[in-house]
Parts: sequence; structure tokens; C-alpha cells
Amino acid sequence: MTRRVRIHEVAPRDGLQIESRFVPTEDKIALIDALSATGVAAIEATSFTSPKAIPNLADASEVMAGIQRRDGVRYVALVPNRRGAERALASGADELNLVLSASDSHGLANLRMTPWQSLERFAELVPLARDRAPATRLNASLSTAFGCPFDGPVPPARVLDIVARLAALGLDGVSLCDTTGMANPHQVGELCQQVLARHPQLDLTLHLHNTRGMGLANALAGWQAGVIRFDAALGGLGGCPFAPGATGNVCSEDLVHMFEEMGITTGVDLDALMRTAETLPGLVGHEIPGQVVRAGRADRRYPLPAGIAR
Amino acid sequence: MTRRVRIHEVAPRDGLQIESRFVPTEDKIALIDALSATGVAAIEATSFTSPKAIPNLADASEVMAGIQRRDGVRYVALVPNRRGAERALASGADELNLVLSASDSHGLANLRMTPWQSLERFAELVPLARDRAPATRLNASLSTAFGCPFDGPVPPARVLDIVARLAALGLDGVSLCDTTGMANPHQVGELCQQVLARHPQLDLTLHLHNTRGMGLANALAGWQAGVIRFDAALGGLGGCPFAPGATGNVCSEDLVHMFEEMGITTGVDLDALMRTAETLPGLVGHEIPGQVVRAGRADRRYPLPAGIAR
Repeated sequence: MTRRVRIHEVAPRDGLQIESRFVPTEDKIALIDALSATGVAAIEATSFTSPKAIPNLADASEVMAGIQRRDGVRYVALVPNRRGAERALASGADELNLVLSASDSHGLANLRMTPWQSLERFAELVPLARDRAPATRLNASLSTAFGCPFDGPVPPARVLDIVARLAALGLDGVSLCDTTGMANPHQVGELCQQVLARHPQLDLTLHLHNTRGMGLANALAGWQAGVIRFDAALGGLGGCPFAPGATGNVCSEDLVHMFEEMGITTGVDLDALMRTAETLPGLVGHEIPGQVVRAGRADRRYPLPAGIAR
Repeated sequence: MTRRVRIHEVAPRDGLQIESRFVPTEDKIALIDALSATGVAAIEATSFTSPKAIPNLADASEVMAGIQRRDGVRYVALVPNRRGAERALASGADELNLVLSASDSHGLANLRMTPWQSLERFAELVPLARDRAPATRLNASLSTAFGCPFDGPVPPARVLDIVARLAALGLDGVSLCDTTGMANPHQVGELCQQVLARHPQLDLTLHLHNTRGMGLANALAGWQAGVIRFDAALGGLGGCPFAPGATGNVCSEDLVHMFEEMGITTGVDLDALMRTAETLPGLVGHEIPGQVVRAGRADRRYPLPAGIAR
């Protein structure tokens, strides 16, 4: 098992998009710039969707224009369609993250497309990114890869079929997304092992949610299966409208903390990441679910209670 | 890896002891009786400590006298000393759970004893339980086995030395306790493997806290190492006075949910456990950290949003 993993920070997109309050553009830029300095490998900075669909990210172009790009950090933009892809390419995103669902119902509810319709559209988008010099990276995020809140279990064979079609389109990477936190460690290990074995050339990323508390356990199982790329959201922001009250994405600082405690290098400055996470409540107007920020790192020491002699 | 694990419910003791509000004796009894019906293998029902030290559990004898014993459930009482052991034996506890710390400072702060002093006391307590017919089971819970909030890392050799001495005293079981949530999955796997290899006759239990979000990941690592007994607290009650704001023990219903989703049998009726967890906020006067109660089980289904046709 590898001792080096890469953290992809998705809070600016997957976290902020469902917040009830619009985070001002300059605050988004400051957040991304702070994240750039922490050592994360990639930042999903925004989403080029219709401002009507996701008003919180209506400032996608301004955000991409305002951030300070740092060498070694990949700036990713999520794109749902051709119009979004064109805007994202114009913004200079290093990578387009195309999005589709593994289940029909989630695809129809979220994108008005079945997986098969999404794959047809992707075929048209690939040349857009490939014809640029240098070519822009292409990733696809496969929602509900571990289960759908409408359709229930998603057969692994279906996920493997979709991943094979994505690979055949020539994408650089695929993210398996546990969109509503339905995955368990056994399932994560099995599916990741199969994808890695079949597509060694594909950059596999695990995108986990902590809806039912299994976020870090699933990350552990993914790592044991050979996954080295993990999406995570600062503070554990994000979540799913279908699991009210539940926590959101797996929390970046908690994930980095676990890996580093295990002796697995993330390349991330955990203290800097925690300081950035501490700014989130002021930004979004509520407490965040991340636990290491509240409890302190495992190496935190306390003074002996008064009157105790060693 | 075994497909059957045993859940030891500790909320009535480890959860309620640090609550700011005294839970009335009849409510404690009702909680334990409800837990008895869920299929957990053991319930740590109370602690026979000084009422001055833990006023919330001052009704230990009344609780033990009031509960309905159910076949197949072991009723455990925590005891810190000889006086507590005598009271617990008089109450008819099926098992005495002796407590000591792996680190000097935590032992002195919590029990006014170093581990070595605790071991000397235990030698005096063993005959008390053994001379009964039938003999009462004896377990020792080893606090700070994965790290101490005062002393920092606790060398595995020290933990193994203490466990060997506990085994030599003839105890039936030992619980390795991550008292303040400092353990990581790598560490849990390594230490549990070593204890299991050296003491196959000893019933090993893992007692985990979710202070830094790693509770379920650590349980997974323990299970992978061969552990089949897990302490857990309903609702994730409990915690540590040294990690304010952090969540407490690993949450019973979240742990059962993870195992059952992985195809590992717990013997627990998860729905009954969740219904019991839902009564906790009324009992303790605050929200509980458990996540499955909020999000619903992974097999929860949602209706398709209006206007989406399949």
C-alpha cells in the first residue's frame, strides 16, 4: 500500500454550492488562495452551471479570474454541459470535471439525463478540451456510484460498464462518488479494486460523504484497495439535500489528520489547513462538522490536573 | 476475518456519567431494559464508584436491582476499587469491569494510581469474584492504551506488558481503550494483532472514541486485525473532559449499521437500537452525535422530485 496520497479540496464548489448564504466572490477567492498554500494537490474551485440552478456559484468566471494560481496545484472546474465546458475552458481551468450519475433516477433528477445520455454528450465535449494547447485535463465524477437515494443499490457491473465507457472516451480520470453517503468499507474496497485492476491508466479518485459516519472508514478501505486520490471538503462542508441534518463531504482536515497519523504522506500542512477551516463558520454562518478542529490534533497535550503529582 | 461481532453497549455507564444532568433512576432502568431487547451482547449498566466522584451514577445498586435481566445479555458493572467490587458483586453483576490506565499521568489523575499500583490492587480483587459460585467474570479496561492526553504516546511494549500481567492474574478479558480518541487505524490494527497473537485465550474488546472522527475507521481496522468485541455507546454519548466540543464514544447504532452494511452480523436489531437512540435527547437534554439516526439507514429511499419522469 502506498505511503503517499493526494488530497483534492472540493469545499469551494461542493461545499459552498448548497449553503443557504451566498459567499461573496472575494471571500471565495481568499478561501481558494488559502487552500492553495496548504499543499493540496487540486482544488475544485467552482462550477460552470446555470446561475439559476446554483446561484451560489454564479460568480464562477470571476472566481477563476481572481485566484492566484500556485505551481503544483491543479484548479478544477465542474461542468455539467457544453456551455459550461466552454466557459470553464475560457477561464483557464486546468481540468474540467464532467459530472454524470450511475443511476437513472439521480441522473434525471440532477442533470435531466440518464448515464447513457450523459456519455453521449461527453463524446462531444472531449475534443473541446483536447484541441487546446496544452490540452486541458478531463475527469468525470460518477455520482451515486455506491448507491442511489431513489433507485437504491447500483450494481457494480453497471458502474464498471460506465467507467469502461469513460475510459474509452479517453478521459484522464474518474471519480467514484458516494453522493449520499450510502457506501460501506467492504463495498468501497471491492469496487475500487476492480476499477484499478481494469483501468490502471485511469486516475481514480474517491469522493466520499460522511452522511452516515463512514467517511473515514471508507477512505481507509479505498486506500487499502490502492486508491491514492481523495476528494474532501474543508470543515466537512457540503452534503446532500436528501439527508437533512446529516454531515456532508468527508472532512479534509480530518482525512489529512487520519492519513498523517497513520504515517501516510498527504503533502498537506495540516496546521495551515486547520487554520483555514477555522475561518469557515464566519464565512458560511454556522458551525462545521469537522472534528479535529474542535478536538485538536491527536498529539495535543493537556496539563495535569491540579494536585496530581507524578 | 470473522463475520460475527459482539456489541457491548456502554452508554448507561460511560455515556451518562459525564452528562450535566442527573438521569432519574427509573429512566436509566428503562434505557437498559430497552437496550436488553436490541440484541447487544453486553451492557455496562453502571459504575460502583464513590457518589462524590460520579454523582450521576450514585444509584448504581438501585439500577442493578431494577433492571430486567435478559438471557444472553451480560450485565457489567465498572468498579474502581475493592469497595466498588464488593457492592457490584452484591448487586449480582455478571461481570466486573476493573479499570486502570496504561499511562502514569492518566492513572494518577483518574484513579490516583499508576498502572503498577492498579495491578497490585487487582490481585486482591480477583479472589473476590472467583470465590463466588458461579464465578463472576472479570474484565479489565485499559485506558489510554493508544495514547495519553497528558503523557502523549504510550509505547506498545508498555501496553503489552500490562496486558500480559492482566492475563497472568487470570482475568477473562481485556478492553483496549482509546480514551481520548488519539488512536489511528494503523496503530489499532498493529496493537490488536499483537494482543490477539499473544493472548488467544483472553477476550479482547476494543473501546473506541470518535473524538477526531476516526471511531468507525478504527473499528474497521480492529475487525480486520481479528477483533470481534466492540464497546460502543448509544447515540455516541460520552466523551472526554479533555476534548471539549468533541463527540464521545463510538456510536452504537452507527457501528452496528456499518458492520451490517458490510455483511458482518452483530446480532443487533438496528431499527430497535435506532428507536432507543431517538429517546436520548429527551433523556439528556441535548442533541446526540450519532449520524444514522439523523440520516436514516443506507437503504433509506426518497421519492423522485416532482416533475422527473423515469
